[in-house]
Amino acid sequence: MAAYLEPLARLINALSKLPGIGQRSAARLAYHILQQPEPEVRELAEAIYKARRDIGTCPICGDYTVGDQPCGMCQDPRRDGSVLCVVRDPRDVAAMERSGAFRGRYHVLHGTISPSENRGPGDIRIKELLVRLRDGEVKELILATNPDLEGEATAMYLARLVKPLGIKVTRIAQGVQAGADLEYADDVTLSRALEGRRDM
Amino acid sequence: MAAYLEPLARLINALSKLPGIGQRSAARLAYHILQQPEPEVRELAEAIYKARRDIGTCPICGDYTVGDQPCGMCQDPRRDGSVLCVVRDPRDVAAMERSGAFRGRYHVLHGTISPSENRGPGDIRIKELLVRLRDGEVKELILATNPDLEGEATAMYLARLVKPLGIKVTRIAQGVQAGADLEYADDVTLSRALEGRRDM
Repeated sequence: MAAYLEPLARLINALSKLPGIGQRSAARLAYHILQQPEPEVRELAEAIYKARRDIGTCPICGDYTVGDQPCGMCQDPRRDGSVLCVVRDPRDVAAMERSGAFRGRYHVLHGTISPSENRGPGDIRIKELLVRLRDGEVKELILATNPDLEGEATAMYLARLVKPLGIKVTRIAQGVQAGADLEYADDVTLSRALEGRRDM
Repeated sequence: MAAYLEPLARLINALSKLPGIGQRSAARLAYHILQQPEPEVRELAEAIYKARRDIGTCPICGDYTVGDQPCGMCQDPRRDGSVLCVVRDPRDVAAMERSGAFRGRYHVLHGTISPSENRGPGDIRIKELLVRLRDGEVKELILATNPDLEGEATAMYLARLVKPLGIKVTRIAQGVQAGADLEYADDVTLSRALEGRRDM
């Protein structure tokens, strides 16, 4: 019963830690990798390492950016700075942008309030949001956290926090399927959700 | 319609070249990678690159080995050198070894004869096989290529080539899978299972 060669075992182990990839898929991927030309494998390894090394979060909105400079959208004068869309993850920004329905700016929380996972308001980028709201440029805050338990709780919390500041607070409409992940919503659904947003 | 950041786009592109991973899964994996601790991402990148760099093929059997030295099985005196099991890929060696049913040695062809893909006998490790058969140690050659069109064609070709050398040539049995339901077996499998029936 021969074990895998050490470099192969190490590769299978590393691959199997990726989401949705079990031992079997990991082995299949590993054998595939061994059969590819070395430059292609080097490209994959470099792309993995460099993406992690070179991509940071924008100090303003929290979206991904190269290095630690403010991101392109925060610096883009064509984006409407009076409307701020609050999302959980950078992937949600990408999903919103794919829909093309939003021309304002974003604020990425990097998480949601989750009592069950012991994550409170201090663990996500709420403090940074309040700093952004201070100068009065933002007239409307669109809460676009996921339509699930944690996303709703986070939206409720933010609404209560921000409305007293005299800023209009809206929630994306439940055009997005309840319980679904924002990232996988199609463009039309996301557009409708934006159009149908209501006061909170 | 913002595009992905360059390092992220590069990562998604590299990941989407892996088998069974489309654009969507690649994006999901890429975002996951960005969120992992740097040491873990470095480990994944290194494991990929080092497996490809450090694993070569055994000059004797063609199985994977570290560097270009003969592999552990070819050097293991406890393996029966009189029986040689011919398989297509190193993964088939791993599958055989997992079964624990074989104690001889292997020969990995690294492919099959495939007229449709323009792969002839000269493109797989048949020459190397003939060299191994020269010294007379091998008494039986077990053809364990896949029971598909190319695997059968390759087995037929090898049988015709090797039998005249006075070496016993066998083919692994085809039949219903262990634990499978007869009702769901396909016609070819059932025909083969009947043809290959044995006395009890």
